Amino acid sequence: MNAIPAEIDTPDIMVELDVLDRNIERMAAALRAKGLRLRPHAKTHKMPEIAARQLAAGAVGLTVATIGEAEVFAEHGATDLFIAYPLWIGPRQAERLRRLAGTAKVAIGTDSVEAAEAAGRHLGAAAAGIEVLVEIDSGHHRSGVRPEQAVAVARAAAGAGFRVAGVFTFPGHGYAPDMPAKAADQEQQALGRAAELLAAAGFEVTRVSGGSTPTAELTGTSATTEVRPGVYVFGDAQQLELGRCTMADIALTVAATVVSRHEGDDTTPRRLVLDAGSKVLGGDRAAWATGFGRLMDHPEARITALSEHHATVLWPDGGDLPALGERLRVVPNHVCVAVNLVDEVAVVSGGKVVDRWRVAARGRNA
Amino acid sequence: MNAIPAEIDTPDIMVELDVLDRNIERMAAALRAKGLRLRPHAKTHKMPEIAARQLAAGAVGLTVATIGEAEVFAEHGATDLFIAYPLWIGPRQAERLRRLAGTAKVAIGTDSVEAAEAAGRHLGAAAAGIEVLVEIDSGHHRSGVRPEQAVAVARAAAGAGFRVAGVFTFPGHGYAPDMPAKAADQEQQALGRAAELLAAAGFEVTRVSGGSTPTAELTGTSATTEVRPGVYVFGDAQQLELGRCTMADIALTVAATVVSRHEGDDTTPRRLVLDAGSKVLGGDRAAWATGFGRLMDHPEARITALSEHHATVLWPDGGDLPALGERLRVVPNHVCVAVNLVDEVAVVSGGKVVDRWRVAARGRNA
Repeated sequence: MNAIPAEIDTPDIMVELDVLDRNIERMAAALRAKGLRLRPHAKTHKMPEIAARQLAAGAVGLTVATIGEAEVFAEHGATDLFIAYPLWIGPRQAERLRRLAGTAKVAIGTDSVEAAEAAGRHLGAAAAGIEVLVEIDSGHHRSGVRPEQAVAVARAAAGAGFRVAGVFTFPGHGYAPDMPAKAADQEQQALGRAAELLAAAGFEVTRVSGGSTPTAELTGTSATTEVRPGVYVFGDAQQLELGRCTMADIALTVAATVVSRHEGDDTTPRRLVLDAGSKVLGGDRAAWATGFGRLMDHPEARITALSEHHATVLWPDGGDLPALGERLRVVPNHVCVAVNLVDEVAVVSGGKVVDRWRVAARGRNA
Repeated sequence: MNAIPAEIDTPDIMVELDVLDRNIERMAAALRAKGLRLRPHAKTHKMPEIAARQLAAGAVGLTVATIGEAEVFAEHGATDLFIAYPLWIGPRQAERLRRLAGTAKVAIGTDSVEAAEAAGRHLGAAAAGIEVLVEIDSGHHRSGVRPEQAVAVARAAAGAGFRVAGVFTFPGHGYAPDMPAKAADQEQQALGRAAELLAAAGFEVTRVSGGSTPTAELTGTSATTEVRPGVYVFGDAQQLELGRCTMADIALTVAATVVSRHEGDDTTPRRLVLDAGSKVLGGDRAAWATGFGRLMDHPEARITALSEHHATVLWPDGGDLPALGERLRVVPNHVCVAVNLVDEVAVVSGGKVVDRWRVAARGRNA
């Protein structure tokens, strides 16, 4: 029943519909129970069909990373979009945001006085129709300011004509073993402190936004009002190795064929080569990952090398090497980058391809 | 003159036309001087405009990785294609190869008796119109057989109806510091030994194919007849750090904007964040690479972390941090995966965008 349907040519991305729906419902229920609003990150899937399912399950809106992604989801009917990114806005970006704000409620991120001022300069009166959330660094040390710097940025945004709605952070340092709980704690403290300072400075703070898939269900409720997990819809090898999901929760796999097979000898390893390489799995490999992805039905095997069209899989001595031509399912390390490599995915249910969904926002980087 | 043209929105991929043409001519001249045929790997660029320039400079044909790439280049007029991959051929793949062989001279790779037999079974009489090259493992230990196993595979291919033309290898272990020369030597020995064994077994060996960008100009001429470098047209940070090209040879960069800027303090690093992440640079990072790409005009800076839409750049203490909104050129680590992330590239000459080329074979993984 979980075999690869015969009509699929490899490599290809398959989404198991029943697992997808279960993941969507589970996260929605967990956050509902905590009284947190769910605003899933659509950069993971880039597909209007999945966004629609998330919204039907109770999501309050969508998170996106770029103006281009926001445009695609707005064209497909999304009415509440948060571009959770410290945008640098010039004249062309301002024109696109203006159009977008005409069809949907739009919020953007900022983390500097300079970016807020530049945005206001180019947006002019249109800034009043756009919300701003100040990005806070809760420990990931990527973008975002320290909580004590948030008021200055918020004042610049308000001065530029925006309505300042609150603060957001991405606790990306939760992507490491034993880190999700610690990162969730730090997130809560940083967001709480920043929100407090903004309120003390006279801002009406209505949105305090955090979250990521590893931390979403650990998110504290003392400060946060909404969370933005993305990967949870599919799961991936990173979440698996972080202990944030099980194989049974994996909704997306790459169908691959054994194209080369070697029992090994004194100088060469016992291995398979699959026709799924970095051009369909993505090349992400965190320092703590055990390989470049996992095999769904062979948890003991390890993908030790990845080329563009080859995955080299070392096989444990005990088990038989699968045959040449056999088809195996690969769980990508990081599903967001895998989905962004294909134009469409095969939707599978009961062992059959029941639909193909277009990755409508694929490649919309700007 | 090398600034980012004003009409470009970031992130976007730019190709410097003059550098591209110089790279194409330099490799062509170097191999012509050695008497080696050049069959460039088109998976690097996936663009018919670049393939046409390579063929005009004397390339004997193109190398591709998949049937889908071969189809795209054949549609654009390529007449001599080598799918340098150990294809597993079922009925649908056979039908596509049959059509392809009707419009172009086609060769494919194989590295097993089983794959050769399966291919012959599905291709039937059409096998006679397709050449086979047996893949040899010259030290990379990915796909390919040891030279001593080549005759058995060649006999299976001949028995299946193919014309066996010779052998090929990919010396991928040359992608490491101090390894290009060693890998080129091992390639020459492995190919030479395999070709000798095939000839002794009665095969007419007309093609002995090797090469990669790090090893191409080091390729020995005792056995090899053709080489298949790909990356040389653009160069990238890997070639730079392997010492196989200089910054002046880099023809492809990603235009990026500084979206976040932090002088740093006791607990956070001095850094920039650029809007070019793994969804435009690709996530490849070899163990020996100094980061996730390089900045063209700031060789001392290092990209220490990459998210999908953020490059975190640590800045040396001495130099001033570029301003928010400043636009910088990023050299991807591995250009083949970067190109595969965009639908088209901006072609730049004399500081202006002179054309946009479609990445016609993007995503053709199967």
